[in-house]
Amino acid sequence: MVHLENLLNDLVIANRILAHEQVVDAYGHVSVRHPERSDRFFLARSLAPELVTPDDILEFTLDGKPVKEERRPVYLERFIHGGIFEARPDVMAVVHAHAEDILPFGIVNSTPLRPVIHSGSFLGTHVPIWDIADRFGDTNLLVANLEQGQDLAKCLGKWNTVLMRGHGFASAARSLIEVVRMAVFLPRNARALLKAVQLGGQIKYLSQGEIDARNRGYGPYSPETWRAWEYWANKAGVGNLVTRSDRPKG
Amino acid sequence: MVHLENLLNDLVIANRILAHEQVVDAYGHVSVRHPERSDRFFLARSLAPELVTPDDILEFTLDGKPVKEERRPVYLERFIHGGIFEARPDVMAVVHAHAEDILPFGIVNSTPLRPVIHSGSFLGTHVPIWDIADRFGDTNLLVANLEQGQDLAKCLGKWNTVLMRGHGFASAARSLIEVVRMAVFLPRNARALLKAVQLGGQIKYLSQGEIDARNRGYGPYSPETWRAWEYWANKAGVGNLVTRSDRPKG
Amino acid sequence: MVHLENLLNDLVIANRILAHEQVVDAYGHVSVRHPERSDRFFLARSLAPELVTPDDILEFTLDGKPVKEERRPVYLERFIHGGIFEARPDVMAVVHAHAEDILPFGIVNSTPLRPVIHSGSFLGTHVPIWDIADRFGDTNLLVANLEQGQDLAKCLGKWNTVLMRGHGFASAARSLIEVVRMAVFLPRNARALLKAVQLGGQIKYLSQGEIDARNRGYGPYSPETWRAWEYWANKAGVGNLVTRSDRPKG
Amino acid sequence: MVHLENLLNDLVIANRILAHEQVVDAYGHVSVRHPERSDRFFLARSLAPELVTPDDILEFTLDGKPVKEERRPVYLERFIHGGIFEARPDVMAVVHAHAEDILPFGIVNSTPLRPVIHSGSFLGTHVPIWDIADRFGDTNLLVANLEQGQDLAKCLGKWNTVLMRGHGFASAARSLIEVVRMAVFLPRNARALLKAVQLGGQIKYLSQGEIDARNRGYGPYSPETWRAWEYWANKAGVGNLVTRSDRPKG
Repeated sequence: MVHLENLLNDLVIANRILAHEQVVDAYGHVSVRHPERSDRFFLARSLAPELVTPDDILEFTLDGKPVKEERRPVYLERFIHGGIFEARPDVMAVVHAHAEDILPFGIVNSTPLRPVIHSGSFLGTHVPIWDIADRFGDTNLLVANLEQGQDLAKCLGKWNTVLMRGHGFASAARSLIEVVRMAVFLPRNARALLKAVQLGGQIKYLSQGEIDARNRGYGPYSPETWRAWEYWANKAGVGNLVTRSDRPKG
Repeated sequence: MVHLENLLNDLVIANRILAHEQVVDAYGHVSVRHPERSDRFFLARSLAPELVTPDDILEFTLDGKPVKEERRPVYLERFIHGGIFEARPDVMAVVHAHAEDILPFGIVNSTPLRPVIHSGSFLGTHVPIWDIADRFGDTNLLVANLEQGQDLAKCLGKWNTVLMRGHGFASAARSLIEVVRMAVFLPRNARALLKAVQLGGQIKYLSQGEIDARNRGYGPYSPETWRAWEYWANKAGVGNLVTRSDRPKG
Repeated sequence: MVHLENLLNDLVIANRILAHEQVVDAYGHVSVRHPERSDRFFLARSLAPELVTPDDILEFTLDGKPVKEERRPVYLERFIHGGIFEARPDVMAVVHAHAEDILPFGIVNSTPLRPVIHSGSFLGTHVPIWDIADRFGDTNLLVANLEQGQDLAKCLGKWNTVLMRGHGFASAARSLIEVVRMAVFLPRNARALLKAVQLGGQIKYLSQGEIDARNRGYGPYSPETWRAWEYWANKAGVGNLVTRSDRPKG
Repeated sequence: MVHLENLLNDLVIANRILAHEQVVDAYGHVSVRHPERSDRFFLARSLAPELVTPDDILEFTLDGKPVKEERRPVYLERFIHGGIFEARPDVMAVVHAHAEDILPFGIVNSTPLRPVIHSGSFLGTHVPIWDIADRFGDTNLLVANLEQGQDLAKCLGKWNTVLMRGHGFASAARSLIEVVRMAVFLPRNARALLKAVQLGGQIKYLSQGEIDARNRGYGPYSPETWRAWEYWANKAGVGNLVTRSDRPKG
């Protein structure tokens, strides 16, 4: 069982980790589904993730409307989160960001972005590329309404990460800790792959069996996973906030 | 209406942001046109942008002469600013810098530097390359007089950014906040493009329609734009200086 | 003669240096053989190396069992260390890490990772690549038991460093100071080599004679080696801990 | 006229700047010729440049012997400095370092390292590559005696910078401020050139006339040069030490 207070605390930590690890900057956001109401999710108000505190966390319905009246601006692209939570009941957390090193893989189509390092395995076997122009023509490239969010979710399908052409990516996972991990290792996997392309020769991607084996062994509170969460929180200056959201606080 | 005191304050912030975001170092500068006297602009004295304070801001006429007698050294290349302000009445702010990752695009001519990521859209459809040698032969590559500044402005034409071969770039925009944004995202766009070239295959640049759509939606005080300005100011250690230059101070 | 107390102190310093030099992050570890009992080695409990203190150092037998009962989690991949210490009586210290810039050389097979810079000479003439799949099929890529550790050690053979496909590397050396040095310079050598490949043309690797000459001249307490150790410790914030493990403490 | 006390102070600043700008790390060094005794030069004792203080500066004769008896270790490679000062009476300061981004240009021979950006112009028209193996066969690649230093100086000839295959570079200039500037911009020029090669197409190097024009305009105390020196000193934490070595102290 997940305790809501601890989960929202984890969401603040997630914002700070993603900022410190340079996955997000002024832009990009991370959300978590309400543990007791699957038709709602939590996301910060419009603010750089590095600056997010508990007071900045808002509750939304899946169509991107704040549950409580809110006068502060909200993220334009909250429909990414709503669209994915709606389409994927198994998903408990979503990250959207523009991490620089994944962008090339959405701009050209010559090399599929797939896991080449063990820590990238959670990307899964396939990372689809969503081009907003395919259905919506000339836009400002932002996912600015529910229809666009739903189209993105459709492209994501059953996979874990979708590249957004000329824009960034969205990742979805079974837990907040897992989606942060995926978002942190995604650019590393992209860099390793780009450099392998530069060296030339045939690329050894992780096999389907290896991806499955890693997936089976994953647990958000295993010592290995927890070690990274604590380490990243510490680096991001919020080590003191770390709690176990699977346990009562205090 | 822009309040002068706030605008000069913004110019200090702009200097600090460009330094912190590694667009400028010891060299490079940012200017803003006088909001009430279109034949004048503000620019720091000769100083690394990271060290600029309000006392370092000077007022210049478009031919690069300080309005008040000034004994401290001034930037050699102030003619970049004067030349562009003279040729482009629509331009309210100019950045000149040597950001490392844009340099290759001025040294070779094989890949046009154009927007490939949504945050690079403000570069516009075309980025001309100015080679000072074309008209002035063997120089020290610096824009050291008004004639050279005017020639650069002519090459810039109606576009937003011009590359300077073996030297750097100049960007021009409708507001200080916009030109800082352009200068910050320019190197990121350049890096994404270079890596896409390294991956190989056909590059998907932003379409004309996408560039237009983004341009129409831009406002210097929209929540999205303002979020980045506040974030960058905070990172640069001048978050406490932020005011709204479209409002009276205090 | 090595004094145990100083050696364990050095192991803490080694953890911090490897973290600060970005060889390890949340993952990766460094061990040292017991100076008086060659069938035992010291390694931290499961913890990010940046956070390791003397209380976190545990003693293991070569099959990866803690000598004293231990309730805190231990590294899953301690078998890398045990396997190498077992197979190589000359080896006194081992590093395992995922340093990003060496990964491409295990993902493609087109360019051998060998010394191209003098500080990379300690890699030796040949760096084998171990693919866990060759013998163990589809795994989670981790070295999770003694048999896998022994197989890795067999692939390492008489060499100093072995790449692990899609995962990282393991380095082995005659002393802790030497293995830290090797691990720090390994990614630098990899980057220089990758960039040389990008420039194109025939690569001048260090010759066998040069590698031998450097190897003969090496001493862990020579002024040159010691200079780097002190420098790195200082950068990592543990300059105050530095002692000479070949001398009595105090 | 140069005042000795200020010059030695500048040498400390130069050490710190080169460390902060990542030209040197634990290794690499900078020297200055004695302003009144052209057969002597100043160089730190064996110490990471980041840690150098006035007490660490030693005086050497051109054959690499300390003028005063010295019990602390000295740099093995001081012969680089002696060799160049002996062969080049016009040279007043020398830097030797291993800056990572210049290494590829000494490992392969396909692309000459020459100025492509205006701030790289002080490299001059040609940068020779010295391979220690050509004359000395299999060595540890270090310049460990006067004969090797003299051979390096011979390869440098009349130029400003010489690459050392698999090792690093040596730069020589008319003043300490100029040689630091050269060493800082050398890796930047190398990076811009490497990326231009990656983009493909014909590279526009600076012309001979441009190199000459920049060289003629250079002065160590011009506002532009001094601006960078002050900026770098400030970044390196020694802004408070800055004096003008062409003026009496205090």
